[in-house]
Amino acid sequence: MRRPLFERGVMDDNCIFCKIIKGEIPAEVLVENESAIVFKDINPSAPIHYLGVPKEHIATLNDVGAQHAELVAGTLRALAEAADKLGVAESGYRVVTNVNRDGGQEVFHLHLHLLSGRRLGKMG
Amino acid sequence: MRRPLFERGVMDDNCIFCKIIKGEIPAEVLVENESAIVFKDINPSAPIHYLGVPKEHIATLNDVGAQHAELVAGTLRALAEAADKLGVAESGYRVVTNVNRDGGQEVFHLHLHLLSGRRLGKMG
Repeated sequence: MRRPLFERGVMDDNCIFCKIIKGEIPAEVLVENESAIVFKDINPSAPIHYLGVPKEHIATLNDVGAQHAELVAGTLRALAEAADKLGVAESGYRVVTNVNRDGGQEVFHLHLHLLSGRRLGKMG
Repeated sequence: MRRPLFERGVMDDNCIFCKIIKGEIPAEVLVENESAIVFKDINPSAPIHYLGVPKEHIATLNDVGAQHAELVAGTLRALAEAADKLGVAESGYRVVTNVNRDGGQEVFHLHLHLLSGRRLGKMG
């Protein structure tokens, strides 16, 4: 088992998601794997709304490099596992990442929204 | 340089996105890398709407396994490169993948929507 990424000095001390990953701020964590955690969004946009967050501080999708392949792919797998645990893998769900102003990004630590629990409408 | 994935027999003969990857159906391709192509959506939901499609036939995010890390991470990088080429990396954009009925998935070959060109609204 590799050491968690957050012990390798790739966290940002001022980032709320880094603090959740380190356990300094509580969250309702549903799935954790080597790459990411998936926890409940406290301000939901759908009946089911979770966030998949990689265990390394990357600001946005623009900053993902070839060295992050396992990290981002592991984050996607953690979200699919969360959908399965929530019983919505077959009925369906949506995964969204917002980048910068026009995307509506609010926290500058890469995160992917998992939305489900109803038929989702327009993508934006 | 690895051989393109679509020469390895991991395509579905009846899939429209596999046909686009193989060049059998035309598309306005903006970015191509080892893992994916990014092409213009012919039925856009935003002023800028492209699709990032991995060069391997995977039906949905539910079907992504550990062996697909390079493939899906490369697809995300291709989308970020597309955003950069389109001049929206800094102004912002949204990346979405829909899974099954409640997500609104229409083609059962994993694909990620890149939406931009205006301030995007609700995620679904």
